[in-house]
This record gives sequence, structure tokens and C-alpha cells, in this order.
Amino acid sequence: MAAEKQQLESIESVLKKLPDADAQVFQEIYYGKNVRPMEISEDTIAHARMQNAEVKAYTFGAHPEQLRASRLVRVGIFQHQTPMATNVPIEQMRATMHKMAHDAITTAFYGHANIFCFQETWNMPFAFCTREKQPWCEYAESATDGPTIKYLQELAKQYNMVIISPILERDEMHCDTIWNTAVVIDNHGDILGKHRKNHIPRVGDFNESTYYYEGNTGHPVFETEFGRIAINICYGRHHPLNWLMFGINGAEIVFNPSATTDGLSEPLWGIEARNAAIANSYFTCAINRVGTEHFQNEFTSANGQPAHKDFGHFYGSSYIAAPNGSRTPGLSRVSNGLLIAEMDLNMCRQVKDVWGFQMTQRLDMYAKSLTDACAPDYERQIIRK
Amino acid sequence: MAAEKQQLESIESVLKKLPDADAQVFQEIYYGKNVRPMEISEDTIAHARMQNAEVKAYTFGAHPEQLRASRLVRVGIFQHQTPMATNVPIEQMRATMHKMAHDAITTAFYGHANIFCFQETWNMPFAFCTREKQPWCEYAESATDGPTIKYLQELAKQYNMVIISPILERDEMHCDTIWNTAVVIDNHGDILGKHRKNHIPRVGDFNESTYYYEGNTGHPVFETEFGRIAINICYGRHHPLNWLMFGINGAEIVFNPSATTDGLSEPLWGIEARNAAIANSYFTCAINRVGTEHFQNEFTSANGQPAHKDFGHFYGSSYIAAPNGSRTPGLSRVSNGLLIAEMDLNMCRQVKDVWGFQMTQRLDMYAKSLTDACAPDYERQIIRK
Repeated sequence: MAAEKQQLESIESVLKKLPDADAQVFQEIYYGKNVRPMEISEDTIAHARMQNAEVKAYTFGAHPEQLRASRLVRVGIFQHQTPMATNVPIEQMRATMHKMAHDAITTAFYGHANIFCFQETWNMPFAFCTREKQPWCEYAESATDGPTIKYLQELAKQYNMVIISPILERDEMHCDTIWNTAVVIDNHGDILGKHRKNHIPRVGDFNESTYYYEGNTGHPVFETEFGRIAINICYGRHHPLNWLMFGINGAEIVFNPSATTDGLSEPLWGIEARNAAIANSYFTCAINRVGTEHFQNEFTSANGQPAHKDFGHFYGSSYIAAPNGSRTPGLSRVSNGLLIAEMDLNMCRQVKDVWGFQMTQRLDMYAKSLTDACAPDYERQIIRK
Repeated sequence: MAAEKQQLESIESVLKKLPDADAQVFQEIYYGKNVRPMEISEDTIAHARMQNAEVKAYTFGAHPEQLRASRLVRVGIFQHQTPMATNVPIEQMRATMHKMAHDAITTAFYGHANIFCFQETWNMPFAFCTREKQPWCEYAESATDGPTIKYLQELAKQYNMVIISPILERDEMHCDTIWNTAVVIDNHGDILGKHRKNHIPRVGDFNESTYYYEGNTGHPVFETEFGRIAINICYGRHHPLNWLMFGINGAEIVFNPSATTDGLSEPLWGIEARNAAIANSYFTCAINRVGTEHFQNEFTSANGQPAHKDFGHFYGSSYIAAPNGSRTPGLSRVSNGLLIAEMDLNMCRQVKDVWGFQMTQRLDMYAKSLTDACAPDYERQIIRK
């Protein structure tokens, strides 16, 4: 295997080289003023260290109100490398992943997280670059009683935590079809429901349309004891309409479990989930995979380059953005990490009242425009001399 | 008048303090790899200097194709302070503005610009903070034969340049109503058409809904000799559906002439127009006013603070973003400036082919979802236990 490129630790590690006053100015303009580092317990830090994971914590402020108490919630998002060679037996990989999940969720519990979310198809290699159906399709499991979901149900109940588990789903009730699905387990360990990825990429090594189809679950928002949440899986973050519908359905936090690589999307990563938070007045949590995965058999990337065995670098950099446009710094580009953010969900409505994007959105006009635009004989509004 | 806060020159002036290698790494991740500084003539620089304006120039690359020649176009966007006290007589202000426009457009001509765009309501103070109707409504002029449009028609013809002029419009044919309008003048000096601002803010000092209503011109795309262009005026940049419709109608470059202040929107500024470029596979040009405008009569800002006479700081920072997610650095936060970018419009379709956002957007599903969501009895898709 060729030596891999030395990877940058994080964009924030570069900015640390600025003089303090300049870093502060940059921070206020780039990240916004309403996000502050938050202290977390020694337990949390020690537990993360045992897993070779970093842990960072931030808090977003909101204003006190007269009629509503603060609605503080803590979210934990976890990014990780595939911990073993991609070709180990599935049961071995799964057991290792479950152990890692246990450790990560326990760390989040020490950090008082109420809602926890993994990256996309978190319990398997991101093998869709290979276009091989096996053994990868064997990783697919039931969204109601598969081994991963059952394992997490126990943890959710034990830790009183809502857990979002993005997996490869096997739908045995509908002809054994495969889906890219996020399962929501509530803090009593019950399955609240699931959402299937709405938009499937056909770009670079992301040959996912070979494996599963566009989701058929609409834009569900899950009402939990800690707030109304939704999941926009990976490539769906490029689609403003997908984000919009979760907002229309009442989401206060939208998770974006992803797997995306540096050559493809890195300059876009800080933009899209954050724009969605702004446009829809909710919190967004963007989670990306970490590391470079190698596969046993070579494959091509449809880019004129020779066949090879690695997917390129998943650059992590998970972050959380608020309705007012502020965001946390990102996690590392190279290592496992847990990002905890405390947020007052009251900020969502407060920002709606200030900015008024919902009041001014002219939804009826666009419903008509989009309907017109779908017609096969649609004539675009083009002005010519 | 109280001493004004010392303003930061630009976010890029902070980043210049990084060691070169770090600045390069940051640049590639933050701005993207596909934008490079471009040489411009001494004439251009000298002419800009005479106006106390900076000039910056960049080029975006695209791939050669077999069947289409490159479609290189140069865009010039100009940001400026109101050059006189806000309460000078209107004719005096207008004459000074026209002189400044002449100089700016001449500079852009030296820089070989094909399309030129000003900031929002560029030829008057941004007086909508005052809620006074006069003298400000007197600045409104006809979009077909007002003095500013006539003045620019001559320049457009002389310089073979498409000019976009965002003005306060008086529509005498429809009961003297006032609109916030961008007029497109083609490179022969003919008026190609106009677009009226689709979304009107009610936030902070932006009391614009006191003066004019939501636009009734749809989402026109103007077919010019240099490419298909559209205009999303100011607050419309917060609305992804507004950007989307310009894309559906075929825009290759969308201008966002704006006026927005640092206390309100600065962390959002780099996000929204750039996200629109990504989501819709077109170029976007975000132009903001510069400086702090003072008014004769005091006004309140509905924020619990005492009455005052200034609008706060318009922070400039104009920039151009490409369909592949790369962007130019911004212009200054404090001074007049001209940003020239050379772009190959072939990049738009190239990015569509690579990323496939249009193919995968499921427009029919959203047309139906938005139509449903407009119903008074719409039931949101909320999953409860």
C-alpha cells in the first residue's frame, strides 16, 4: 500500500496560529458570536481519551422569555473511523462496532447528552465505491429488530437517551429491498420510527444508486421528550427543498449523518448544513466519517485514473450550526471525536420572530411555480430582446 | 456625532497573518481550489485608485469540452459608500452618484468586464431605517426612462457592457407605486427588462415593507450576449426557493445586490449566496454596500436602545462563488471596491453532470409537498409515540 498523504488535523488547527486578538475577530465574523466553549466533566474527557477520541463541547445561548421556560437540550454527535480492516468477517466487525458505540454513548452520557447521533451507515465500511453486492449487502439489517437496533435500544433505555442510528436497512416485508435508513430510538428504548434517505448520489465513488433507491418515507419529524428532530441523510444536504420540508414539518434539530471525502466536497461542507440552519430557523448537526478505507478488490472511480483500492479521505470536521447562523468549530479531520452542544430550542422561534423567513417565504407562489416547472412542456421565464 | 468603532479591513486581512503554507492550506479548504488571482492592466488599477477604490480580479477554471467552445465572461461588481451626506439635495446626490458610476464602469471596462452590477438601490442612501416617506420616495424613478437608467444606457452602449442597475422604482403606469427593482440594460444600451425584489424584510432597521411590496415579476432570466443572468435582490438571498426558481429558469449567473449591516447578518454573508451557487450549479455574485450612513432625524431600531441617527455599518465583503463551491476572497469591509471575475459558463453544466443535483432533486415530490403544506388544514408529518 502506498504511503498516504499527511492529512491536516483541522481547519481550526491552522487558525490557532493567528495572534489571539485576530483569532477572536475571525471567530466572531466566521463562526458568529453566540457560541461558546462549554466545560465538561473530567469523566467525559477521560472516557473519550480511553477511546482515542477527542471531545469538544459548546453552548448556544438564547434569550429568556416570559411565557416559556428555557428548553435546554444537549446533543452528542460522534464521528469515527472504521476500526478494523474492511474485509474482516461481518460478525467480528459488528461486534467491534457495537463495543465502540457503547463507549461513545457512555462518554456522551457522562457529558449529559440527551440525543445522540452516529454518522451515515455507521456500523459498516462505506463500501459503495466497490459496486460489489457481497459481502456488503449482508450488513443490511432490519430497522425494527436487527442486531444493531436491538443493541442500541438497551443503551438508549439505560442512559435515558434518544439515539439515531443510520444503517443499511433490509426490508424483509417488502421483497428484501435495501435502503439507507436512520432509525430513531427514544429514551425509553422504543423505536419511534425511521427515515429513508431521500436523495441518492451518482457522483465519483458514491455508487449508492447501485444498492438502494430514493426514500419513500417523506419528511418525518420525530417528537421526542427533548425536542422535535429529523434526519437528512448525507447527499440530501445538497437539496434545499429536503431541508425545507423538515422545517415545514416542525423540526427543531436536523441531523445530517454523512460520509464524504476531501477531494469531492470539502469546500462545500461548512456551507450547506449551516445554510439550512439559517434558512429554516432550526439547529443542524453535520456528521462526517473519518479516515481512509481500503478494500480487498480494486475498483475504478470513473475519473480516468487507474483502478485502486481506497475510497479517499473522509475528512470528519463534524459541526453544529444554530438558527441564528452561528456554528461550532469542527471536530478533527483525522480522528474519532464526540461533539457535544447545549442548545436552547427556544432560539428557533426567537429567530423566526426576528428574521421572519417563514412569514416572508411566499410558499403558495413557489408551490405553484414548482408545479408548473414539472410540466413536460414547461416554458422557462426567459427574457430575450 | 460619537466616534465610530474602528472597523476591521477584511476577514482576509486577518488571514494574511498566517504563515504562507498555512494560508494556502486554509485557502484550499475554505475558498476551494478552482479560483486564482488574475492579472489586470495597470490602467484598471490606476483608474480604480483615482476613485479611492480597490480592485481585485480572479479567474475560475473550467474543463475544455469537445463540442462547446469555452464561454468566458468577465463580471464586474461594484460596492460603494454613499459619497455625500444623506441630506444633500436629491439632484446633487444623483449627479455625484452618476459621476461615480461613470468612473466605476470605466474601470470595469479597462478590466474587460462584460457584465456590471451595482449594489441594491445604489444611487441613494439606504434610508428605509427612517420610516420617513420624504424626501426618500422622491429618489424613486421610472425603470424605463428615469434619469439613472437613461444615463446608464449611454454607458452600456459606449462600453459594450450589460449593466444591472438596482434602483427604487416609481411605476407611474400603476398608480405611482414604488418597487425595489433591478433594471437590466443590454450591451447595446437597450432595456432588456426588470426584476422586482421578491422577498421584503421586516427586521431591525430594514423597514422596507413600509415602502414597497413583494415583487410581481416572477423569476425572470435575462438572455444576454454574454450569458443568461438573473437578479436576486438582497433579502431574497435568505430564501432557497427564490434562488431555486432562477436556476430552474436557466440562470448561469445570479447577482445578489444587497445592503446589510454587521450586527445583523455578517456570519451569514459568506454562506447564503455561496450555498445557492452550489445547490443550483450557477455562479452567484454577492454585492454589499459599504460604510455607515447618518440621517438628519433620529429614529429607533425597535431593539430597546435609544433613538439614534445611523444605520450601523454596511460591511461590504462582496464576493463571487462558483457552481463547484469555490469562491473569491471578499472585497474590503470599509472601502469602495470593484471585483472582477472571469468565469467559463461551461462550468455550470459540467458541475450538473458531475454532481447531478438537478437529476436527483425530485421536483415533482416537492411540488406536491409544498402544495399540501399551503393548505390551511395541513397536517405536519410528525411521528409521536
